[in-house]
Amino acid sequence: MATQTKPVLHGYFRSSCSWRVRIAFALKGIEYDQVPVSLIKDGGQQFTQQYKTLNPMQQVPAVEIDGTTLSQSLAVIQYIDETRPGPRLLPADPQKRAQVRMISDLIASGIQPLQNLYVIQKIGAEKMQWAQHFIDRGFQALEPILKQTAGKYCVGDEISMADICLVPQVYNAERFKVDVGQYPTIKRLNEALVEIEAFKESHPSMQPDTPVDLRA
Amino acid sequence: MATQTKPVLHGYFRSSCSWRVRIAFALKGIEYDQVPVSLIKDGGQQFTQQYKTLNPMQQVPAVEIDGTTLSQSLAVIQYIDETRPGPRLLPADPQKRAQVRMISDLIASGIQPLQNLYVIQKIGAEKMQWAQHFIDRGFQALEPILKQTAGKYCVGDEISMADICLVPQVYNAERFKVDVGQYPTIKRLNEALVEIEAFKESHPSMQPDTPVDLRA
Repeated sequence: MATQTKPVLHGYFRSSCSWRVRIAFALKGIEYDQVPVSLIKDGGQQFTQQYKTLNPMQQVPAVEIDGTTLSQSLAVIQYIDETRPGPRLLPADPQKRAQVRMISDLIASGIQPLQNLYVIQKIGAEKMQWAQHFIDRGFQALEPILKQTAGKYCVGDEISMADICLVPQVYNAERFKVDVGQYPTIKRLNEALVEIEAFKESHPSMQPDTPVDLRA
Repeated sequence: MATQTKPVLHGYFRSSCSWRVRIAFALKGIEYDQVPVSLIKDGGQQFTQQYKTLNPMQQVPAVEIDGTTLSQSLAVIQYIDETRPGPRLLPADPQKRAQVRMISDLIASGIQPLQNLYVIQKIGAEKMQWAQHFIDRGFQALEPILKQTAGKYCVGDEISMADICLVPQVYNAERFKVDVGQYPTIKRLNEALVEIEAFKESHPSMQPDTPVDLRA
């Protein structure tokens, strides 16, 4: 596997899917370069022809790694996990792996797509209620699942892809003024996770493209 | 691994996520029982307290397998692949696995959630245009990706989870009157796949809960 060249993450400081990949790189201790793609400036830099060749979905992130370009954050994270040393991001036990993927997909397919910028822009005036509705619906399902699977973290006591998905989704929930206190397990896990260095250094307030007034 | 008991699929004949799981079972040659959950009858049987314990997201499918209950179709499919013999549903090569997951997630996170029944019911009168917009946006991205990755099937010449996601999404596209002919690679792959027995026997027109007038 040719890993001489550092991976390049094309992302946006506030994109939760970009943040997922940043956490994975940080947990694995992988150095990478960042190329900012502003979802706001110039009407959205993800819509340029140049970016479209990297990710035809015109979304962030896109990751150049090992001579290929990948998009879809969970595909990237699992690729990193399968090709790099360091702490595993999915457990060895198949049932636990399934739980990690179930939680990750509940967030990545069941919540995030319904509250992302492009979608709520199409909703218009009702966008705040729309986003809150779908985040609450997802968290109402996630809370009883996590009550069964969680130890210190989402599945047992080891950090996994599920945790990588949870923290950015809680960040989004707070931006949309969802009362996360209604979900005690989600709240507890998030509070434990945000104290961990890999989650801190990858936070939206700490990125090269974070605007000065939003910096930590 | 205790596999004495047949898995039980709680699903709906026309749900594309249920169909994905049915294809995976068929490709692996796994016998299973089906319990129909009508998304239409009684205001939606997925909203009952009884079903909510199986899948707190109140969506289909939910699968009882090996003493546990899993939801999220891609988590179920990968669990089946990791614990059952038979043809692999993800390739051995990490880069190809990543391509399979990228294509699967593009559909499972980038298209399907935006055109599912629950979401378009919330959209109201504009629901047809809404669904068409998001399917077209997804297919416009999928087409150039598949042009690069496809052989006989979505990634090379072996059937994978990407194909399992593609066929039900094309079926949905046709229901929403999207012109699939605009996407020659998608069209070609779908035409090859629907001829395969595992895709045929799992088709929405062939299920125990398929209404008589929709039966093949």
